[in-house]
Amino acid sequence: MVFDADAIEVLTFDIFGTVLDWRSTIVEEVSTIGQGLYVQEDWVAFANAWRSMYSFMLGRVNAGQLPWTDLEGLNAAILAQILPDYGLAALDDGERASLSRAWRRLQPWPDTLAALARLRQRYLLAALSNGNMALLAHVSRHAGLGWHAVFSAELVQRYKPDPALYTEAARMLKVDPSRIMMVAAHPSDLLAAQRVGFRTAYVERPSEFDIAHADTVDPMTAFDLVVPDLGALASSLGLS
Amino acid sequence: MVFDADAIEVLTFDIFGTVLDWRSTIVEEVSTIGQGLYVQEDWVAFANAWRSMYSFMLGRVNAGQLPWTDLEGLNAAILAQILPDYGLAALDDGERASLSRAWRRLQPWPDTLAALARLRQRYLLAALSNGNMALLAHVSRHAGLGWHAVFSAELVQRYKPDPALYTEAARMLKVDPSRIMMVAAHPSDLLAAQRVGFRTAYVERPSEFDIAHADTVDPMTAFDLVVPDLGALASSLGLS
Repeated sequence: MVFDADAIEVLTFDIFGTVLDWRSTIVEEVSTIGQGLYVQEDWVAFANAWRSMYSFMLGRVNAGQLPWTDLEGLNAAILAQILPDYGLAALDDGERASLSRAWRRLQPWPDTLAALARLRQRYLLAALSNGNMALLAHVSRHAGLGWHAVFSAELVQRYKPDPALYTEAARMLKVDPSRIMMVAAHPSDLLAAQRVGFRTAYVERPSEFDIAHADTVDPMTAFDLVVPDLGALASSLGLS
Repeated sequence: MVFDADAIEVLTFDIFGTVLDWRSTIVEEVSTIGQGLYVQEDWVAFANAWRSMYSFMLGRVNAGQLPWTDLEGLNAAILAQILPDYGLAALDDGERASLSRAWRRLQPWPDTLAALARLRQRYLLAALSNGNMALLAHVSRHAGLGWHAVFSAELVQRYKPDPALYTEAARMLKVDPSRIMMVAAHPSDLLAAQRVGFRTAYVERPSEFDIAHADTVDPMTAFDLVVPDLGALASSLGLS
């Protein structure tokens, strides 16, 4: 697919999985808790269960089967459900709240910070995320990210891949969707952005692929750019 | 007034006048236009007229005398009104649009960037501004600013000093207002933040004082901190 990189003014970033490595921090924090309680479980499976159930819950909110609940609210509810499956039913409220807040303490992928500094030379950089504003603000501070704009699903009370947030971002930025490139590691996110006219850059984060809903898609033909990481995105866009 | 700096988690910044020097860029861009047309006027007076009329218009929007109009919309309407007073009635639509967009090309004050880098080490940094989202995003990109959160009057369709935006920022960040410090060069902004429970830091930008609505206030007794610039704010808060 041919596209004109000079026409792009704005890059919108998925945060959890694309910019940040959520899994390492969650696994690390829950294993520390497990060790303290002499519980041995597959903590990667725990992290994956937490994350995949939340994808399911977002869908229920978008379908109107659940009232609007922000991502931190959903994460806390899911945590309460899965703790018993992993031998952690005994955690008290404070311990549960602290583990939920691990989502505010995620680390960037190793390529993230340097790449964002390069991309910032030319593009308007915006977060476009299902995280609520408090979560995005805290995790950005913790990971050392700085944005020109932050678009949270909280603003439209609809979760990606519903079209509302992409459309609202374009409207608020007063930019034609064709001048915005969505950057994400999840095909479902990019397909939704593409449907409202955004350009798309697929970032290959291998550990993210299994939770994508659209793995019947071939990224090489479906998206404008396919890159192994954000540094390669900057290079693909011609930035030194 | 004694306050506990350790209790502060979030700094919210006024942008136009506090973080950015709007007047220099506006004067520079309009003088260039004037020179091209052999028009000689007091361009500082032009810039002040533009800005002070918009303060008046914001008040009319808050009072319900004008429908919601974003800051760029107000700026464009005011520009059309004042151009004839300064010999620039002949500007065509494209030239007017370009001059309005000068508000997206403002420069930071000399102390701004280094101070924000220091403050970012410890605090969550948020813009809290009457600018609409597009204006804030573009001017942040242009001036090299990066935020953890951006709170625009556009989100609540009420302008500062109405309490709505301060309250909404605290609610979205899930932080008690007493843990937020508003940083501004305009007493009216700080007084409004203070009324909803924020801490306050007054930044002395002498050229901003004349457009404040509350110049009967003595900043030294009214606010938690009074600093000559943002670098001094970082030092006052104990940052190296």
